[in-house]
Amino acid sequence: MTAIATAEYEARFEQARALMRAREIDAMVVTAEANLLYFAGHAPQLYVSPTRPWFVVLPLAAEPVAVIPTMGLADMRRDSWIERFETWASPRPQDEGVSLLATVLLALPRRFGAIGFELGAEQRLGMPIADFTRLCEGVAPALVAVDAAPIVRALRIRKSAAEVALIGAAIGAAQAAFDALPGLARVGTSETTLYRAFQAEALLAGADRVPYVAIASGPGGYDSGVRGPMQRCLDVGDVLGVDTGATVGGYWADFNRNLALAPVPAAARTAHARLWQAQEAALAMLRPGVRAADVWQALAGALPAASTSIGRMGHGIGLTYTEPPSIHPDDTTVLEAGMVVTLEPSLDYALDGGRRFMVLEEDLLVTTDGPRLLTRRAPGELPVI
Amino acid sequence: MTAIATAEYEARFEQARALMRAREIDAMVVTAEANLLYFAGHAPQLYVSPTRPWFVVLPLAAEPVAVIPTMGLADMRRDSWIERFETWASPRPQDEGVSLLATVLLALPRRFGAIGFELGAEQRLGMPIADFTRLCEGVAPALVAVDAAPIVRALRIRKSAAEVALIGAAIGAAQAAFDALPGLARVGTSETTLYRAFQAEALLAGADRVPYVAIASGPGGYDSGVRGPMQRCLDVGDVLGVDTGATVGGYWADFNRNLALAPVPAAARTAHARLWQAQEAALAMLRPGVRAADVWQALAGALPAASTSIGRMGHGIGLTYTEPPSIHPDDTTVLEAGMVVTLEPSLDYALDGGRRFMVLEEDLLVTTDGPRLLTRRAPGELPVI
Repeated sequence: MTAIATAEYEARFEQARALMRAREIDAMVVTAEANLLYFAGHAPQLYVSPTRPWFVVLPLAAEPVAVIPTMGLADMRRDSWIERFETWASPRPQDEGVSLLATVLLALPRRFGAIGFELGAEQRLGMPIADFTRLCEGVAPALVAVDAAPIVRALRIRKSAAEVALIGAAIGAAQAAFDALPGLARVGTSETTLYRAFQAEALLAGADRVPYVAIASGPGGYDSGVRGPMQRCLDVGDVLGVDTGATVGGYWADFNRNLALAPVPAAARTAHARLWQAQEAALAMLRPGVRAADVWQALAGALPAASTSIGRMGHGIGLTYTEPPSIHPDDTTVLEAGMVVTLEPSLDYALDGGRRFMVLEEDLLVTTDGPRLLTRRAPGELPVI
Repeated sequence: MTAIATAEYEARFEQARALMRAREIDAMVVTAEANLLYFAGHAPQLYVSPTRPWFVVLPLAAEPVAVIPTMGLADMRRDSWIERFETWASPRPQDEGVSLLATVLLALPRRFGAIGFELGAEQRLGMPIADFTRLCEGVAPALVAVDAAPIVRALRIRKSAAEVALIGAAIGAAQAAFDALPGLARVGTSETTLYRAFQAEALLAGADRVPYVAIASGPGGYDSGVRGPMQRCLDVGDVLGVDTGATVGGYWADFNRNLALAPVPAAARTAHARLWQAQEAALAMLRPGVRAADVWQALAGALPAASTSIGRMGHGIGLTYTEPPSIHPDDTTVLEAGMVVTLEPSLDYALDGGRRFMVLEEDLLVTTDGPRLLTRRAPGELPVI
């Protein structure tokens, strides 16, 4: 379902090779769903099952090899630009592809003796650790496992036009669901009902999946930006926050919208306006060469001081729901054209003797001309129905 | 969103402790979404983001501790029966919860010096391997990491009444989507459209998520039981296969249905009848004490010999889409009351000089009285519209 050209996969492979050469690695093995999609152009739907691992080997001095369960061969052969496949009859718990992968790795041209795996920050290895250990010990006499996460990060952090288009398609589907929200969010509707209806709207508008819908409501404000729905029903005077992650071709949209059911307290209107203005401040300074930490400072500088206790206020999006960089005071990543990041300021506000929370999120592409919003900008004033 | 009582979580913890004692383990650490749900009763929606790991520590001689990012505290405190929390301000890539987890582990009563982690078959560790290695090395002088997968397997393989009810709810939502299929599957409808509409139907019927929809169609038969949709549009004479994984409260349904658009070749009708009869043969012999391999033999014995090249023909379901046991000739697991498994025979058949594929899947609970179907049995004859 991806719309990425073979030439782009070949270019990714060559870029990976350049980084492998610089780091003295003979091959990379990727197993995570996002990395299978990124390098091979195919990840099986069956990835949701932990029974079978899927390996793609990217050698410095040989063509890529997919080492996969036999049952996935036909689909991957059709979808992937990779031409060499090695398969085993899975499930076979006593040797779930491990010896086959070792054979493929040991047959590769050897220059440095090191193989890269997804070991480092923000990576999850798509195989049991016991199998990974057995692979390393079996392979150990000749090969050493090293971290390929920096290579994955370096490649994936900047998006191509085709990737931006897929993120844009996911954003479009999510936007259609947000557009339907005022018609769905009536007094008496439960968060759970909204949660299901929101997903259905996004799917029917073209999302492949809607794996994330945070939804929270409450009188004059809500209390969480990340929780799932509760049985609570909407009432007059509520503020509703919905945040979604929807995908097209594996690429994620991540943004949220707020909606109030009149009458709305001034504190909620003010909170929304402050978040919107904080984003304006960030949009005004965001360009290549600025650091992620600088963007965080721009957001934080426009918010009440107490709000800046919130850790990060945005992050990269792409083949995972969140990925580098983090819009965080400690992240010194220098923004470059092609990065796609969210701006996600949040704050607490006082109301009726309690605290309420609000977040506002947009997605943008960093270009040489500055930020290009991929989301349709939320209105400056909190929408009320 | 789970409907599991606190007493059941406490009982799971006590059962885990008994197995930990037998295996001489001082504590287990779980990180996978399914295991967080199983032991703590809460996994964050944000689990889709790989930025932040989530740890639950289950000690032999102390109360459980959730070691989680601060932002997840309020939600987990509300949803989980666990009462002790340790948090860190994530993201913090230089120390993403590792030192905090080590502190918690080192403070536990120590009897054996071993800590169990999700290392073995069908497990995925929910943290970067580099962090796991750093944890083990930091903890190494005092503690040794051992495999807790056998404990997880032993507990999760038999389902409680509450778990069966959640699986049943997921099945009900998926069944509603299958019931809508004849109205959706018209000549000219694309697989992609059906794929989205099917998900939407299941959601609106009560599924929390529909993470898996395999869909394939073709003249007189289809060619894959696991692929995603293609742009292909349905035509007269097609056979359509749809297989889904839908969840409620984290628990999965997994079954499929076949549908033909008249006229249907006799070979497709025969294939469906054979699969249905193979399931009848398995249902007739399936009871506690029978091995998973015996069920496979019952299915295989009722199918043309060539079909038995298919590896497994069913598997457990629960908090993951597939889990032990495998209905596979090599799986000697003895079935017990409380196990929930699928019966998923498949076969190839010849048509117009080519090969077609068909699969038929039902979900059942093993009881002392024999199998109890959780799915509404597919009709014996291939449905035609």
